[in-house]
Amino acid sequence: MPAADRVVTDVARRFLDVRALTDTLAERLSPEDQTPQSMTEASPAKWHRAHVTWFFEEFILRQDPGYTVYDDTFRYLFNSYYEAVGERHPRPDRGLVTRPGVRDVTRYREHVDAAMVDRLERGDLDEAALELVELGCNHEQQHQELLLIDIKHLFSTHAFGPVYVDREPDEPGVVTPVGWRQFEGGVVEAGAVGSGFSYDNEGPRHRVYLEDFEIADRAVTNADWLEFMADDGYRRAEFWLSDGWATIRETGWEAPGYWRDETGTRSPDPADWTTYTLSGRRRIVPDEPVAHVSFYEADAYARWAGARLPTEFEWEIAAGSLGAQRGALLDPGRCHPGRAGSAMIGDVWEWTASAYLPYPGFVPANGAVGEYNGKFMSDQHVLRGASAVTPAGHERLTYRNFFPAPSRWVFSGLRLAR
Amino acid sequence: MPAADRVVTDVARRFLDVRALTDTLAERLSPEDQTPQSMTEASPAKWHRAHVTWFFEEFILRQDPGYTVYDDTFRYLFNSYYEAVGERHPRPDRGLVTRPGVRDVTRYREHVDAAMVDRLERGDLDEAALELVELGCNHEQQHQELLLIDIKHLFSTHAFGPVYVDREPDEPGVVTPVGWRQFEGGVVEAGAVGSGFSYDNEGPRHRVYLEDFEIADRAVTNADWLEFMADDGYRRAEFWLSDGWATIRETGWEAPGYWRDETGTRSPDPADWTTYTLSGRRRIVPDEPVAHVSFYEADAYARWAGARLPTEFEWEIAAGSLGAQRGALLDPGRCHPGRAGSAMIGDVWEWTASAYLPYPGFVPANGAVGEYNGKFMSDQHVLRGASAVTPAGHERLTYRNFFPAPSRWVFSGLRLAR
Amino acid sequence: MPAADRVVTDVARRFLDVRALTDTLAERLSPEDQTPQSMTEASPAKWHRAHVTWFFEEFILRQDPGYTVYDDTFRYLFNSYYEAVGERHPRPDRGLVTRPGVRDVTRYREHVDAAMVDRLERGDLDEAALELVELGCNHEQQHQELLLIDIKHLFSTHAFGPVYVDREPDEPGVVTPVGWRQFEGGVVEAGAVGSGFSYDNEGPRHRVYLEDFEIADRAVTNADWLEFMADDGYRRAEFWLSDGWATIRETGWEAPGYWRDETGTRSPDPADWTTYTLSGRRRIVPDEPVAHVSFYEADAYARWAGARLPTEFEWEIAAGSLGAQRGALLDPGRCHPGRAGSAMIGDVWEWTASAYLPYPGFVPANGAVGEYNGKFMSDQHVLRGASAVTPAGHERLTYRNFFPAPSRWVFSGLRLAR
Amino acid sequence: MPAADRVVTDVARRFLDVRALTDTLAERLSPEDQTPQSMTEASPAKWHRAHVTWFFEEFILRQDPGYTVYDDTFRYLFNSYYEAVGERHPRPDRGLVTRPGVRDVTRYREHVDAAMVDRLERGDLDEAALELVELGCNHEQQHQELLLIDIKHLFSTHAFGPVYVDREPDEPGVVTPVGWRQFEGGVVEAGAVGSGFSYDNEGPRHRVYLEDFEIADRAVTNADWLEFMADDGYRRAEFWLSDGWATIRETGWEAPGYWRDETGTRSPDPADWTTYTLSGRRRIVPDEPVAHVSFYEADAYARWAGARLPTEFEWEIAAGSLGAQRGALLDPGRCHPGRAGSAMIGDVWEWTASAYLPYPGFVPANGAVGEYNGKFMSDQHVLRGASAVTPAGHERLTYRNFFPAPSRWVFSGLRLAR
Repeated sequence: MPAADRVVTDVARRFLDVRALTDTLAERLSPEDQTPQSMTEASPAKWHRAHVTWFFEEFILRQDPGYTVYDDTFRYLFNSYYEAVGERHPRPDRGLVTRPGVRDVTRYREHVDAAMVDRLERGDLDEAALELVELGCNHEQQHQELLLIDIKHLFSTHAFGPVYVDREPDEPGVVTPVGWRQFEGGVVEAGAVGSGFSYDNEGPRHRVYLEDFEIADRAVTNADWLEFMADDGYRRAEFWLSDGWATIRETGWEAPGYWRDETGTRSPDPADWTTYTLSGRRRIVPDEPVAHVSFYEADAYARWAGARLPTEFEWEIAAGSLGAQRGALLDPGRCHPGRAGSAMIGDVWEWTASAYLPYPGFVPANGAVGEYNGKFMSDQHVLRGASAVTPAGHERLTYRNFFPAPSRWVFSGLRLAR
Repeated sequence: MPAADRVVTDVARRFLDVRALTDTLAERLSPEDQTPQSMTEASPAKWHRAHVTWFFEEFILRQDPGYTVYDDTFRYLFNSYYEAVGERHPRPDRGLVTRPGVRDVTRYREHVDAAMVDRLERGDLDEAALELVELGCNHEQQHQELLLIDIKHLFSTHAFGPVYVDREPDEPGVVTPVGWRQFEGGVVEAGAVGSGFSYDNEGPRHRVYLEDFEIADRAVTNADWLEFMADDGYRRAEFWLSDGWATIRETGWEAPGYWRDETGTRSPDPADWTTYTLSGRRRIVPDEPVAHVSFYEADAYARWAGARLPTEFEWEIAAGSLGAQRGALLDPGRCHPGRAGSAMIGDVWEWTASAYLPYPGFVPANGAVGEYNGKFMSDQHVLRGASAVTPAGHERLTYRNFFPAPSRWVFSGLRLAR
Repeated sequence: MPAADRVVTDVARRFLDVRALTDTLAERLSPEDQTPQSMTEASPAKWHRAHVTWFFEEFILRQDPGYTVYDDTFRYLFNSYYEAVGERHPRPDRGLVTRPGVRDVTRYREHVDAAMVDRLERGDLDEAALELVELGCNHEQQHQELLLIDIKHLFSTHAFGPVYVDREPDEPGVVTPVGWRQFEGGVVEAGAVGSGFSYDNEGPRHRVYLEDFEIADRAVTNADWLEFMADDGYRRAEFWLSDGWATIRETGWEAPGYWRDETGTRSPDPADWTTYTLSGRRRIVPDEPVAHVSFYEADAYARWAGARLPTEFEWEIAAGSLGAQRGALLDPGRCHPGRAGSAMIGDVWEWTASAYLPYPGFVPANGAVGEYNGKFMSDQHVLRGASAVTPAGHERLTYRNFFPAPSRWVFSGLRLAR
Repeated sequence: MPAADRVVTDVARRFLDVRALTDTLAERLSPEDQTPQSMTEASPAKWHRAHVTWFFEEFILRQDPGYTVYDDTFRYLFNSYYEAVGERHPRPDRGLVTRPGVRDVTRYREHVDAAMVDRLERGDLDEAALELVELGCNHEQQHQELLLIDIKHLFSTHAFGPVYVDREPDEPGVVTPVGWRQFEGGVVEAGAVGSGFSYDNEGPRHRVYLEDFEIADRAVTNADWLEFMADDGYRRAEFWLSDGWATIRETGWEAPGYWRDETGTRSPDPADWTTYTLSGRRRIVPDEPVAHVSFYEADAYARWAGARLPTEFEWEIAAGSLGAQRGALLDPGRCHPGRAGSAMIGDVWEWTASAYLPYPGFVPANGAVGEYNGKFMSDQHVLRGASAVTPAGHERLTYRNFFPAPSRWVFSGLRLAR
């Protein structure tokens, strides 16, 4: 009996729901689409699908002596970065692993799904193991987002812009002026409280001293960004961090990622610009939040605007006061931000002024999963919120996303503070 | 009615035979296998299959106003290096073009096959066009070999060595001592005489002055090569060209391409070494001709052996005197050299001492096809003969293959002269 | 009358003292020594001497219409990174600028010295200008340290280890066990109070919330480091940040910068190791603070030791409680750390856990000097204290030094916290 | 008594003359000028002066047990590429060796000069040793040319173009039309006959079969080159070898080395272009032979002109028929080509169509000096003639100069054939 048809426990249901979304996202991709790696930071879709499966096999199923490993070579092929697990396939060469193919990866997923459901139904997993299952589900959700941004990057390198999802063009709307929400300083608490799932890097909850601050009531939009460009924002060194200035001179960036000037005039008219979306190349929609900007660009924009980026603690306090408001989260039929609204979670991740560092008292989990977050705590920048390709339920007020400063293939935007 | 079932002219039959072999070679490759590019010099199998098809479309079919182009984007995607045809997809990114997929490439092949057969049957192609058809057939044969060496390279990067073709292991045989065949010098003629097909770079036939020379009666074998290794051949600078020495220090090469020391002892015992073959990783067979050595290694070996490489003219004169003898050519059920015998054509390409330069009076063909050979006449080295993955009928006494000195993914070996 | 012989004001005296130390440091360097640049991050000694001079000319003297510019090409040649000042010589090519030579640079220094003393004696500089003079003096002191670490790096590339300063070898002493000093958490104030000179990046003074913490009463020593090495510290991934692990695998680092294993045994005996010092290659002195480790190594050591690096605020609170204690500062006759003692300022800079970020409310100075510090506030790490090549008087409790994580040509060590 | 004042033998006189010219060339260079290395292929002037000295010490003086080595570290520091002599300083870091300085190198030269003159006067050197002395003299002459082209390259990187030698600007003259000299084909002899000094690579003299050919009666001039540029020579792929086209797209070359378009209009008017010369930046002189073009550019020009480059054998036959005619050779007061005249030797080296390969029967000398030429016989191109910085007496009809195809810091031009 296929796993999906059985009566299952809540945990198993949660597990299967997450697993099913991955399959849904992969359905539109041919075996060829799922094979290449368009840059070192990205991974093949096929690899994502196998790696998240390996995670359950490695950390849950292999603990059970009765489990039959699907294919022992997969431990080498689909370990991402866990040194404690052993040697692994070199990251830059993930796109060369043509075998297993997509069909075999699907069978691998089915094998692990069945074994996991069996295991979950048996009811003998202890608390630590159940936490690892939940970690595995969150891990897979995180990779659902990565799968989509990696496919977007891959498709964008194609001269004729393939379409991942068909949808109607968005009509341009009205760009509202920015308003400012005010917060008083003092000692505040930040970080995950510990009820409900969170990654280890979100804790411990701890005290922070904040000065008074103001934060914008909406994200920076494409229309705002065109003004920055029209004011020679990419050509005036005074707005830029030194590394940022070096980066844009070396890369030649003059606009956000995926943007293209269709007229060669660098006009500030949105109608002259297109951007590659998961529905193919589209006109810029002025009232959408700007996406695919690097930390350097976000920081330069803020300086140009006479403002700054919020720290992650300012952001968390401000977002906490808004309650359950959400912008666009992952809708497989859209995969693109909506209009900039008042919600702080959703649409685009927002760069903060904070470096990605451990909170006071941070201790990574024991064993290989302790490598999940902690070892990346240097030279990365915290993004907060969530994006239009973050699966619903995976977003969280205390979520700390992190990327190096030049990254812009994630749906990354910004919000001003001062 | 499918093209393959029709009564066809000789030219069409020749055309269809060549086309069919490509399909046979691709049959064992999954869509995933056909997608990646494992190094800049290699191309995806899918790309090879489409590119050779584009060649017929571009140079034959597009001349006919009645022809319906299959997909206009393919001109950009599948042009290899013809500047005169226009812009093209960047070579290092061929592995990122997931669309068209394998199925669509197959349809493209069928579309062009049908149109070509139609065209050939109509009987209205002039001599120049028929020569282009024959050039296209040779071009496709050349790419059949490239497809196989590129797949071999791709598969060799896989930690678990996939098998392209199943076959029994070869039994080690006896390595015969080298004999020397003697030739007297003087003015000789070399190059293609012009009856039957040849590439433009094989002519014009012209006179060359040769000194007396001797040439070995068999290729250098794996057993020979192990002696060179055992005598510290890779560690003694006195045998090496300066660029060769720099290359092996930078790459760390200590043995031919695809070889692996299974004991870590660098023993000269063939039983301790394996090589990756298209049938997976196999023990070294001592009496096979050594393959996958660079020009630098071939040259160093020759110096170690107190000999030298033959010039391409010496090689041609010597091979011409042997008549129709052939070593192993492409057998889809084997794809691997046989034992070193007296034939000079087949098994492995043989590096010569000659730089790849135009013959006196060489003029490339008019138009885009003039870019086929001539523009590569700098800093490459001539190989003569043919290999175990060269399609039968494509080999030729005057054939000039050429690769840069460090190349070793081709089945490249050597023969001594003095 | 030479500037140095005149009766001068206090400011002029201060100016001339700083200038004189630069000349003293350069005296032991031949014109050849002063010319090359051994890596992009370093600069030629001659360039340092000219650049600090240009700083006074650019920001003070050129404001005076009566000033005669020494050589107008120097503005291009000796601007370091001030975009607002205009185009400049590419940083990686500083070692190719052979003209002006050392003698001409000396004349340039004399010209600017004389003009500066004139200007200072005239007594008509306003407060802002006098602050720029003081900034220029601190700038030159900072470059005195850079000149020495750059020369150390340059000389270390020489196969026969030139001696910059002759001195007796240090006798090994006793390594004392680490003690821990305890501090209670709460809201504290950090940053420069504004009396006396400080860089803009040291302010504004602001409140920070700290948890309780302990900090070691001495720096990590060479003896400690040898234990880490003996315990396979450089080979166990579990201690390392991901970027750190990648860095040591790529670079092959197995010991601090300038260390050399003289026996090839990687023994933990200090007698088997040497380090390049400004007095040539010397035996490791066990009770000296370890120097020339990167942030990655410092962080890994701390994790191995079951501790962590202090934040820059913890460091500042702890150092503040020690008062005026100083370890070794620049002594031109030594240029090397002393034994690890209780002082936190001196001997070696200490890596902290803090990223180099603006303090709340930070605003860079107006004009070109605003580029002095602020634009480097990304992806660098704060070091606190001072080193044995920091000029006395330049060290400060609130001083924020900063370097990228892999840097180790500065005298960089660490102190544990927990 | 200083060596230069003594009565000396002819060989010693020859030796001292060569040595003196090196000193003359270095006199205008400051210690700073003599220190850096502006690219890997170039060397510091100081290094050239020491290396040529080391050559005599290594191959002559060290054979004498009574000789006192000047400094044993110099064997490591100043060996260029002789593997047989042992380890040596890495080539790309020659510019970091500040010690020995210029003064010490001068003393080293004096030490070796004195010892050599002693040795030569003693009259006990055997024939082989005397041949090595002559080789050493030729070696030093070769480095005189290298010293000048390396200094030209170094100075050209300086924003303000230093002057090596003062001289009046050349007046533009009249460009004469090209005439063609005709030669009949057949078996000819080429290579050094063995009387008088020649490098090993110039022999053995051997027979070659040539077709009929014509060769231009003057070199290609700057005026000719401007026509090629005006006809979009650098933008039309059809003229270029594939590697050449890739090179100019990557480098952005649009004119010969050191040329600069002073108007930004890329006009074909020589008055709008300057070139960096050893006398500083100067206007293009139309009737001078073009210099500082790569093999790729020379080859493309020839194709554009409907001609080709001569082979080195055609060149040698043609130049041999002209007798003792010489263009400009090294005049320390000029260091720049004269007007294009009928001489084939002098002014600029001329790229040929020939790859740099061993002549039939070539055997390198025994011992370390066997590395002088032979090991470079791959992937380089032969230039014939001599240039305006080749010392008089060093030029030779059979001289084979060689450089990789993209090189253009040598005074390299071309002459057409067909």
